[in-house]
Amino acid sequence: VGRLRRLFGDRRARREEGVFIAQGEVLVGEAVEAGLVREIFFREGQIPSGHLLAGSWVVHELDGKTFDSVNDTVSPQGCLAVCSRPGESRWDSGSNEVWVLVAHGIQDPGNLGTILRSAEAAGARAVVVTPGTVDPWSPKTVRASAGAVMHLPVIEVADLEDVVQLGFVLVGTTSHANGRSENIWEADLSGRLAVVVGNEARGLSGDESVHRWISIPHEGRAESLNVGMAASVVSMVVARSRSVTGMSRDGTPGRD
Amino acid sequence: VGRLRRLFGDRRARREEGVFIAQGEVLVGEAVEAGLVREIFFREGQIPSGHLLAGSWVVHELDGKTFDSVNDTVSPQGCLAVCSRPGESRWDSGSNEVWVLVAHGIQDPGNLGTILRSAEAAGARAVVVTPGTVDPWSPKTVRASAGAVMHLPVIEVADLEDVVQLGFVLVGTTSHANGRSENIWEADLSGRLAVVVGNEARGLSGDESVHRWISIPHEGRAESLNVGMAASVVSMVVARSRSVTGMSRDGTPGRD
Repeated sequence: VGRLRRLFGDRRARREEGVFIAQGEVLVGEAVEAGLVREIFFREGQIPSGHLLAGSWVVHELDGKTFDSVNDTVSPQGCLAVCSRPGESRWDSGSNEVWVLVAHGIQDPGNLGTILRSAEAAGARAVVVTPGTVDPWSPKTVRASAGAVMHLPVIEVADLEDVVQLGFVLVGTTSHANGRSENIWEADLSGRLAVVVGNEARGLSGDESVHRWISIPHEGRAESLNVGMAASVVSMVVARSRSVTGMSRDGTPGRD
Repeated sequence: VGRLRRLFGDRRARREEGVFIAQGEVLVGEAVEAGLVREIFFREGQIPSGHLLAGSWVVHELDGKTFDSVNDTVSPQGCLAVCSRPGESRWDSGSNEVWVLVAHGIQDPGNLGTILRSAEAAGARAVVVTPGTVDPWSPKTVRASAGAVMHLPVIEVADLEDVVQLGFVLVGTTSHANGRSENIWEADLSGRLAVVVGNEARGLSGDESVHRWISIPHEGRAESLNVGMAASVVSMVVARSRSVTGMSRDGTPGRD
C-alpha cells in the first residue's frame, strides 16, 4: 500500500518502476487489451468484470478505507491497475510525413491530458514532452487523456533541440500577434512538423528557437482559448491538411 | 454566510437573486469592468487591489475559516463577488449571419465552461442552453468559462424548437458515422446556424430533430474527442467560414 501511494504521488517512483496507474474499469480494460497490466487492485465487494480477473497479472482486494485512501479522487472507481508503460520502441519517426505535438512547459495535468487526446485523435505520430512539463504518466494525466497515453508514443526529450535533431520543423503556436505568425488557416502544415504548445500562463517565449509560428485567429478577449483548446484546434487542422484524415476511412465524408 | 452558501450550491437560489459568483481577483476584476458586481467578499488579511474596493458595491471581510468553508475549491483565492447576470437584452439575433452554440444536455460544468469559452473566441452571438444542461451560472462553470459568461449572452430555452422558432438552422454534431453527417471541412457553415453539441456520454440522439448533421473526421478511437474539444474545433471552423474571423482585426493573418 505504501508503494501504491508512492506510485500515485511520486513521479520518480513511477519512472523507476516504469509504470503508470489506470483507474476505473474502462481504462483498466483498455490497459488489459493493450497488454500492459501488471497488477489489479479492487475495492472490497466491488469485484471487477471477469475479463479483468482472468489474466497473467496479480489481483488484490483492498479494504474500502485503504482503497479510498490511496486514490487521488474523492469518489474513486472501484478498480485500478498498475501498468507497464508502452515501450518507446513504437516510436518510429522515419517517414517524412509524420508530425508530432510537443508539450513544452505544460503545468496542468488536465491540459496535458487534452493535448495527448488531441494528438491521438489527429493522428500525430507521438507526443513529445520537455522537462518543464508535468508527468504524462501521473494518474490525473492518464485520466484526462482518456487512455491516449496507451495508444501513442510519449517521448521525453531534454530540450527542443532534440526534436530538431530528428529532422522536424518546429512550429510554435502563439496567442500573441507578433508579426511573424502565420494564420493557421493559411499556413502550409505539410511535411515533417513538430507543433509546439507552451506554458498556460506564459505561452511560448518569443525567443524560443522555433522555425515558424502559427496562430489561430479569434474574436473575444486575448486569452479566450486555453492551451488545451488551442491544441485541439491546431491538431485537427494539421490532421485535415494531411489527406488521410480529411476523409473517413471508407473515403466518404463523415467521422469514422 | 448562509445565503452565500446557498448561492454556491443551489441553482434556484442563484436564479431567484439573478446572480452568479465570480472567484479570484481576475474574474472579480472582469465583473467590475463589466459593471456586474453587487458585493465583494474577501478573506481576512487578503485585502484585494484598490480598484476592487472603490465602487458602488458593498465589501465584506470574512474570517479565514468562514471564507474557506463557503468556497467550493480546496484552495480558494482570497476574494469573490456576488454579481448580477448580464441582461439577455444584449441578445439580438436579428442578422442573418449570426450563429449560436447550443449546449443540449451537457452534464459537466467544466465542459460547459469550455463550450462558453469556445463560443466567445469564435464570435458566436450567444450560447443557448436547454433544460438538461448544468447551470451556466454555477461557480464551477463560471471559472471554467474564464469569464466568458460575462461577455456573451447565455440564453436558456425550453427546447430546441425554441431555437428553430428564432429562424436558426439546427446543425447537430455527432461522433458517429450515421451516413447523414457532413464532413465539417466540406460543410457549408454560412448563414443563420445553431450548432448543437450533446451529452458527454450519449451524444445527441440520432432522432434529434436537427436539420443537418456534421462530424469532425478523426483518427484514433471512437471517443477520442470529448465534447469540449469538439466544441472548440467546430467553433473555430465556423468562425473561419465567416470572413470576420478569417483574418485578425487589422486584416493581416495572425491572431488578434
